[in-house]
Amino acid sequence: MKSKAIYYHAGCPVCVEAERGVASAIDANRYDVEIVHLGESPERLGEASDAGVVSVPALHIGESVFHVNFGAPLEQLGAKS
Amino acid sequence: MKSKAIYYHAGCPVCVEAERGVASAIDANRYDVEIVHLGESPERLGEASDAGVVSVPALHIGESVFHVNFGAPLEQLGAKS
Repeated sequence: MKSKAIYYHAGCPVCVEAERGVASAIDANRYDVEIVHLGESPERLGEASDAGVVSVPALHIGESVFHVNFGAPLEQLGAKS
Repeated sequence: MKSKAIYYHAGCPVCVEAERGVASAIDANRYDVEIVHLGESPERLGEASDAGVVSVPALHIGESVFHVNFGAPLEQLGAKS
């Protein structure tokens, strides 16, 4: 069974670069990678925040959240703390 | 031909977590992933610094360097600027 990986971003240049560099490099045979644009899907902000995402781009994989470089803080995208 | 990816770390807890979460998720069919412990291989510090690594853990993939969370600054590992 594949593991789930979620790549959260907001369309920023840093986000696009990390999507091309990191998210696209993930092994699709082992992971189902979902790409979530938090600007276009603000209903996912709560879930991202609950997982531990504090800025984008971020990769939620396994039990961990990894912030990849820094594009924008989650609050700037409208997250409520 | 496989692309090269280099994961720089220093054995710190943040580094170990990112290696398990991110570096190990990279598609080995498309990337040759090299794991470099900069504490044990200080001769690689210059190369890492030249590539744009400023802290570990970091992933150098394609033309880009991605800092994954934050474990330690490169200077703390003895890099000369």
